[in-house]
Amino acid sequence: MTAAPVAPDQPLSDTLKDVDTWWRAANYLSAGQIYLRNNPLLRRPLEKEDVKARLLGHWGTTPGLNFFYAHLNRVIRDQHREVLFITGPGHGGPANVANAWLEGTYSEIYSHVGQDEAGLQTLFRQFSYPGGVPSHAAPETPGSIHEGGELGYSLAHAYGAVFDNPNLIAATVIGDGEAETGPLAASWHSNSFLDPAVDGAVLPILHLNGYKIANPTILSRMPEEQLVKLMEGYGYHPYLVTVEDPSATAQAHVDFAAALEACLAEIDEIQAPYRSGERVAVPADAPDTDDSRDVRNEHAPRWPMIIFRSPKGWTGPAVVDGLQVEGTWRAHQVPLSGIHDNPEHLAQLEEWMRSYRPEELFDDAGRLRPEIAALAPEGNVRMSATPYANGGRLLQDLKLPAYADHAVDVENPGTKRISPMITAGGYLRDVISLNPSNFRIFGPDETASNRLQAVYEVTDKAWQQRIDEIDEHLARSGRVAEVLSEHLCEGWLEGYLLTGRHGVFNCYEAFVHIVDSMFNQHAKWLKVSRSLSWRQPIASLNYLLSSHVWQQDHNGFSHQDPGFIDHVVNKKAEVIRVYLPPDVNTMLAVTEHILGTRDRVNVVVSGKQPTPAWLNPVDAQLHVERGVGIWDFAGSETAGPGTKTDPDVVLACAGDVPTLETVAAAGLLKKQLPDLKIRVVNVVDLMRLQDPGEHPHGLSDRDFDTLFTKDRPVIFAYHGYPWLIHRLTYRRTNHGNLHVRGYKEEGTTTTPFDMAMLNQIDRFQLAIDVLDRVASLGSTQAGFRQWLQDERIRCRQYTRDEGQDPPYITGWELQEASEQTAD
Amino acid sequence: MTAAPVAPDQPLSDTLKDVDTWWRAANYLSAGQIYLRNNPLLRRPLEKEDVKARLLGHWGTTPGLNFFYAHLNRVIRDQHREVLFITGPGHGGPANVANAWLEGTYSEIYSHVGQDEAGLQTLFRQFSYPGGVPSHAAPETPGSIHEGGELGYSLAHAYGAVFDNPNLIAATVIGDGEAETGPLAASWHSNSFLDPAVDGAVLPILHLNGYKIANPTILSRMPEEQLVKLMEGYGYHPYLVTVEDPSATAQAHVDFAAALEACLAEIDEIQAPYRSGERVAVPADAPDTDDSRDVRNEHAPRWPMIIFRSPKGWTGPAVVDGLQVEGTWRAHQVPLSGIHDNPEHLAQLEEWMRSYRPEELFDDAGRLRPEIAALAPEGNVRMSATPYANGGRLLQDLKLPAYADHAVDVENPGTKRISPMITAGGYLRDVISLNPSNFRIFGPDETASNRLQAVYEVTDKAWQQRIDEIDEHLARSGRVAEVLSEHLCEGWLEGYLLTGRHGVFNCYEAFVHIVDSMFNQHAKWLKVSRSLSWRQPIASLNYLLSSHVWQQDHNGFSHQDPGFIDHVVNKKAEVIRVYLPPDVNTMLAVTEHILGTRDRVNVVVSGKQPTPAWLNPVDAQLHVERGVGIWDFAGSETAGPGTKTDPDVVLACAGDVPTLETVAAAGLLKKQLPDLKIRVVNVVDLMRLQDPGEHPHGLSDRDFDTLFTKDRPVIFAYHGYPWLIHRLTYRRTNHGNLHVRGYKEEGTTTTPFDMAMLNQIDRFQLAIDVLDRVASLGSTQAGFRQWLQDERIRCRQYTRDEGQDPPYITGWELQEASEQTAD
Repeated sequence: MTAAPVAPDQPLSDTLKDVDTWWRAANYLSAGQIYLRNNPLLRRPLEKEDVKARLLGHWGTTPGLNFFYAHLNRVIRDQHREVLFITGPGHGGPANVANAWLEGTYSEIYSHVGQDEAGLQTLFRQFSYPGGVPSHAAPETPGSIHEGGELGYSLAHAYGAVFDNPNLIAATVIGDGEAETGPLAASWHSNSFLDPAVDGAVLPILHLNGYKIANPTILSRMPEEQLVKLMEGYGYHPYLVTVEDPSATAQAHVDFAAALEACLAEIDEIQAPYRSGERVAVPADAPDTDDSRDVRNEHAPRWPMIIFRSPKGWTGPAVVDGLQVEGTWRAHQVPLSGIHDNPEHLAQLEEWMRSYRPEELFDDAGRLRPEIAALAPEGNVRMSATPYANGGRLLQDLKLPAYADHAVDVENPGTKRISPMITAGGYLRDVISLNPSNFRIFGPDETASNRLQAVYEVTDKAWQQRIDEIDEHLARSGRVAEVLSEHLCEGWLEGYLLTGRHGVFNCYEAFVHIVDSMFNQHAKWLKVSRSLSWRQPIASLNYLLSSHVWQQDHNGFSHQDPGFIDHVVNKKAEVIRVYLPPDVNTMLAVTEHILGTRDRVNVVVSGKQPTPAWLNPVDAQLHVERGVGIWDFAGSETAGPGTKTDPDVVLACAGDVPTLETVAAAGLLKKQLPDLKIRVVNVVDLMRLQDPGEHPHGLSDRDFDTLFTKDRPVIFAYHGYPWLIHRLTYRRTNHGNLHVRGYKEEGTTTTPFDMAMLNQIDRFQLAIDVLDRVASLGSTQAGFRQWLQDERIRCRQYTRDEGQDPPYITGWELQEASEQTAD
Repeated sequence: MTAAPVAPDQPLSDTLKDVDTWWRAANYLSAGQIYLRNNPLLRRPLEKEDVKARLLGHWGTTPGLNFFYAHLNRVIRDQHREVLFITGPGHGGPANVANAWLEGTYSEIYSHVGQDEAGLQTLFRQFSYPGGVPSHAAPETPGSIHEGGELGYSLAHAYGAVFDNPNLIAATVIGDGEAETGPLAASWHSNSFLDPAVDGAVLPILHLNGYKIANPTILSRMPEEQLVKLMEGYGYHPYLVTVEDPSATAQAHVDFAAALEACLAEIDEIQAPYRSGERVAVPADAPDTDDSRDVRNEHAPRWPMIIFRSPKGWTGPAVVDGLQVEGTWRAHQVPLSGIHDNPEHLAQLEEWMRSYRPEELFDDAGRLRPEIAALAPEGNVRMSATPYANGGRLLQDLKLPAYADHAVDVENPGTKRISPMITAGGYLRDVISLNPSNFRIFGPDETASNRLQAVYEVTDKAWQQRIDEIDEHLARSGRVAEVLSEHLCEGWLEGYLLTGRHGVFNCYEAFVHIVDSMFNQHAKWLKVSRSLSWRQPIASLNYLLSSHVWQQDHNGFSHQDPGFIDHVVNKKAEVIRVYLPPDVNTMLAVTEHILGTRDRVNVVVSGKQPTPAWLNPVDAQLHVERGVGIWDFAGSETAGPGTKTDPDVVLACAGDVPTLETVAAAGLLKKQLPDLKIRVVNVVDLMRLQDPGEHPHGLSDRDFDTLFTKDRPVIFAYHGYPWLIHRLTYRRTNHGNLHVRGYKEEGTTTTPFDMAMLNQIDRFQLAIDVLDRVASLGSTQAGFRQWLQDERIRCRQYTRDEGQDPPYITGWELQEASEQTAD
């Protein structure tokens, strides 16, 4: 892709002259943000007192971002495009802010930053300044859905944003630093999941400025032929635009404008036949036809992208202190850093900033000249004002299926064994049916393994590569996306949510740690965006974690890690919820609940194996609402509900397997010690345990004391690492009597009950714990204790001999287990 | 790459016949592990009682792994190669175990699994069995350095393994599922860092069996031309071998053998000129020469790789219950799962297993027939016995520079301000000089940003792409690797350590979360390998985390996250150490210490900015040895060391910034309240806080009580999330009086002291905390309290006005701060 050469001094077309003017204005405002606190229009010679005390920011990537923005504005206006601008190099935050100010959006949102000299001064001062705005693109930045501080996620966010947004183009700048990250390297493959009929398009702009912080980049230094093959190998059609000579800006404008137009035309060409009916997406399982419109045998379209080489810190100081800066890593942050002590640096800064000719850009009052302001697109199509970047403005509530239609009748607690995930799958199937264009499920090839396969009764898995006859549930337009990359699942879902839709990420519990840092960044984004009145609430990020630590029959130690919960609870309490439904109806109630929440991260952990159903539909819903409650049927307090005051011991539990073991332990104890007053407390909303001053869901101390008593031993069987329960409860009255069992990082490929025994959370151990801690029992129960210990040994031996758990132990076989009690 | 076709019935060469025999044997043993508990030689008809109760494992990938293993053995023998086999699809664990048994290694290590029928039966029974061996390649698996349960890291491990191992070839199988992950997608670029002169070679074998758990894979379904471009784009020369017809095994052998030989020849050709001196790696900064051997202007060599397409579950049951299994996702785990209830399945299993002709493989005693056993390589070159896969056998202690040569004289605590990271950089520089071939530093483009730049005085950054004149410290053979991928840094270092070398990963504190899950897997590996007597200890995995939460001048909220420590402490205590050196000499002592440890993960968090040097060299070393201690100079207890018994309050601290604020707070209090007995306790080894029953470094309760008292208020200023301190200390006597300040997830781009104030860990707040908690002070200090509160407001205002911290606050300017105290 090469345009005719343009001599540097050759006049540009009027539109490209306008583009250049906008670019100069944005560059001026960007440099101003990094440097100035006074004299924003350079009406007088620059003095060092005009310059900020601390010079912070990243100039290197910024002029490139401004260049793209200016060109995109042209096509938005000329071609009436809807464009979302995604800034992979979030460090170039000054660019986003500058363009938002030029478009007027910034002043509309932040009225204290007006369209005049005083506003300009505020704009400059506040940047990367105490009490001001962050140096990166951030929630505070109009038009952004992407931080870009932690690199790697721009392209995945972009694909998530355009799913089900057929008219949207996500113009996505990918820095060559970011391109070295794993998540970004995998994100190129997202084109295997983009349906040209119902999804929009992503236009990747790979911006090679040659250097990271201190090193050249791989993609910029490999042979160009190899780079082109790499992009073609990823399935794209690359357009190359190279700026060899930094001063040849006219040629750069001509070349980039041509490439951009060609890309947009190609996008139209790809989409048109899918939208006109000329090509039809037939699911894998449909009967063979001779229909030539059937695209099953075709591969994903070859979408266009741009590779743009330009000098790092383009248009900034070329040489500083005798060292080349422009075009090198030295331009990464602040190219002139000695302003306060070095008059030459000060002079160079002034010369640099005046090179943008501010007097041509702003009038005497500091207003952008009307003919330049008129170059901005209008209203909502301004990239800084697009509702796509403030997804709450587009959010429609989900139509939710009735809980009662999916809940399971439970006459006697624990008599039916049902997989909570299978039932949740049925509920999600109906969510998909009711919300055909704003709800999606993402998973790393585990949706069926996690037992959500009912969704395939109404939809398919999105897939744009060839579909073979043997395939099942594959189609161009599926509502489920399956890719073996947790990073992509998370990034797509985040992009989908941030643009105003709903979704769920289902994942093996252990491997969700792969996206720990992505979760961090999203939780931070939510924390800040909740504090911005102009950002409308978005749907919560929902994790359904299954194939959990206690149920890894096919896998081993590597698949056993319940620590994501610990990771999550470090983030701001108002953003975080953790649910551990103990059975099928509570799982359903939790699923229904989380799909209606906003601006949160909901973590739900549930097993996929058949589990005793404990609560009937009404009780389950109440239990989930309350988050924690006493289970009378499992305990042996004599007084009825509401009057119980004095148990001898509390058996608490959170999580499906710990609940099963706790109820079974209570059963053993009730049989053997009929006079012992046992209270069983189940916790489904984990944050109920925390102090109400720390978490909005926290139980009051009074309620906590009522449930857990002030002075009785509490044996708490918990799904994850036991110390989390201590951390959440260390301020509670009865904390000194709390004894927690949980996962102690002991595991291997073994049976479920053997896993419980390895970590001492099994029913026998819990019963022994009670004997150890209830003082009134003294040593009167030596025989029972011995039987419990022996039973553990017998179970282990049986498991070793037979390769499976003893039949009586595989469920909640309370009856049979109790009958075997002997003393 | 296409070999001449071979008719299926055409006789193979003798060597390839041997390869085929080995393959059959390995496949037989693999299927046997998944299915059988009795009748291992099929001496009698198979009965369902011979079959395990629970059928677990992953057949799909296994025959491919066995195929590669058999072929690699041939070239190891014929060409005297040293090969490390890395099993990306770790789920194919039965393959690794089968081959290790065939090679005799398994029985050498595990004497209860002998080379006879009883041994075979044990081999089969133990697989994925309670008390047996994991279903994945694991530490228990001879010849493995790679788990492969969590996918994505095989190729990075492989590159790490061959760095500085010039004769090693890491034959690395990458499943097409794994190839979709981010870390793997980035790992291909590792070839930009592999020095042909001093490093070995990686031979990637991309194994396309078409399906993941339940879906086709992207790489197997994209057009072949695109796939080839992708691999060429990554800089490789791909050899394609495709098995269209599952029964055409002879052709497959011929084709694969030819491809393998061609690859090895190409590797030799690439390496030879670098080793003969025909090509010379000149560093970037060397003067220009006309020397034609100078390779600075060249690009990375184009290393060979193999793309092998074969049916999933190859040689297994083709069709089960009328559904195609071989070649589809249905072969992923156990292709015949109904053995116990379905006689047809049982019959089909027997037919399948007999197809490997066990009677030709084993003699009557169950011994592998000698002519087959003789096909194994001998001794240490067996891939199952290679010392490269048991790195401790190759480990050489590091030669460590003298601590005293680097430590800084400190006459008065806090009077000098020195960057701990700069000093550590000097120490690491000398480590590199003293250990030129078994120590490396890995970092995501942050080694200089983290202030370790002294290392470039003696080495360069490894870089195999073109080197330009302007570049600094780049060379083919550098001891520092810089790539903008935390995944690659971690994966390379793990591979390097597991093969018996030493290293350090330096990283921004917040972004090390990117490798949370990789850390998990490595910690799990260490936990298990420590329990295996035949696995020799390896060097610890050392994280140097800097640019931490309190020092993010150029960056914002996205860069502020101290939670990696919380994540780390969930893993087994014997594996985990966390150090928070408060100043330069403690940082040096910690660095020296960790480099001598084995089988651990050491996390060190240190700021890079100049920080007051508190301890002289001797005291610092003692302090690090003890891990925690009273700082007399900072407190105001009247009795001398060893006799102090009765402070009014304890000010504890862990981390450099909290220590500075704590000492400053103590200074303010001492000035204002000369009678108040203040004890300052500094914690450098965080795990000293934990119960000795929980962690080997835990202080005894008696020592803890002596330091922290049994009943006095403790104000603890901690580097990270405050609740971790509660979690570590909840069992301690004085826990009820512990008040912890730390990072509360409040941040943005602002000054360092403003960050401290935002999170209420600043000196003024700590002093207020003391006033609030020391009962004897009552409300007598209202004026002082007001002054402290006002001072916070003044500081904030100054910061807002001036864009920087008040000068007197930027360091430990105790004198001036105290002088301003007024009441």
